[in-house]
Amino acid sequence: MITVYGYSSSGNCHKLRLLLTQLEREFKWVEVDSTAGATRTPEYLAKNPNGKVPMIETDDGRILTESNAILCWLAEGTPFWAGDAFARAQVLSWLFFEQYSHEPYVAVARFIRGWTQLDSPRRASLPQLRERGNQALAVMEQHLKSHEWFNGDAYGIADIALFAYTAVADEGGFDLSAFPAVQAWIERVRQTPHFVAMPAPPVEVLSRLALPD
Amino acid sequence: MITVYGYSSSGNCHKLRLLLTQLEREFKWVEVDSTAGATRTPEYLAKNPNGKVPMIETDDGRILTESNAILCWLAEGTPFWAGDAFARAQVLSWLFFEQYSHEPYVAVARFIRGWTQLDSPRRASLPQLRERGNQALAVMEQHLKSHEWFNGDAYGIADIALFAYTAVADEGGFDLSAFPAVQAWIERVRQTPHFVAMPAPPVEVLSRLALPD
Repeated sequence: MITVYGYSSSGNCHKLRLLLTQLEREFKWVEVDSTAGATRTPEYLAKNPNGKVPMIETDDGRILTESNAILCWLAEGTPFWAGDAFARAQVLSWLFFEQYSHEPYVAVARFIRGWTQLDSPRRASLPQLRERGNQALAVMEQHLKSHEWFNGDAYGIADIALFAYTAVADEGGFDLSAFPAVQAWIERVRQTPHFVAMPAPPVEVLSRLALPD
Repeated sequence: MITVYGYSSSGNCHKLRLLLTQLEREFKWVEVDSTAGATRTPEYLAKNPNGKVPMIETDDGRILTESNAILCWLAEGTPFWAGDAFARAQVLSWLFFEQYSHEPYVAVARFIRGWTQLDSPRRASLPQLRERGNQALAVMEQHLKSHEWFNGDAYGIADIALFAYTAVADEGGFDLSAFPAVQAWIERVRQTPHFVAMPAPPVEVLSRLALPD
């Protein structure tokens, strides 16, 4: 059985819960509060020197890190990452787009709004994060004007990776009404078999997210 | 034949030149100066809506973007990305590490020092970029204390991806003497068959890189 070390309110971690649930695979979830230093303990760093969640561990003690690499491994041999080498590389292209051009803006804006104090100097970066995040959402919108999914002809790990933080982009102060194709795709993802939503953040986080910038 | 659209002084682009050369594959290189707006033309955006280099195009007009996804596609079926599914996923893990935890600091510090004006406000971010970049280099150093390569048992695309900007980290103001295992690995990469170095940046960039911060 796979053990997932993850923080439930992290989109990167939720990607794994969503895929494992949709694959109907059993897994053990170990909650690791990365926002409270739990990824910086000597024990955790011994397993993942980069000190991040998510991480998975197999029964025979093998470790794999990086959410999108884990998605690829879990999806190997399933319809979630199928097709010829070029089709699979196109999926990888979206996975790298997500980590380089999307997550550092869309996810980080949500993190700053919800997980930093109201007087944090990091809040000054929100307008720039929104600008760059909106560029990523515009790239997604353009793709979805002529495609149903990011993963190729059918739903798969590229959709799961991009869904994770796009579905909660409003918590980072993004207005998805400017991206109707993205909104429709979010609804399609929610209708996929065995879909499971990300757990709500802790109550003090929710109260900060509810405030204006 | 593959056409590569790339900017020669970009590490992300050089990854492809290095792998294609080491695979002894013919390719056509189209120079695209991303620092002068050439990735923001309507013609370029029609092929890559994300407006970045590198990008490859096949003879039958298929497009693939994201340097590390392209590395995977080119390396498919070669010793540069070999092993079982778990070994290949470990390579992907390093590729995502490179794009998320390394390139945004090590490469961006070099870009700011060499490609922005001396009075650019972006230069204020250099100390923070160095701090985060040094964290990535420390993760690499720890791995290399007990491994010869990042790609598994032999040199491959994880090494190519991490080499690209680590080999020019000094141009971003990083001091690699603190990372002797990284320095030794850089030399091992330079000794691999058909290795080709990244072309030097334009002369005005070189002159800025030679100045202190």
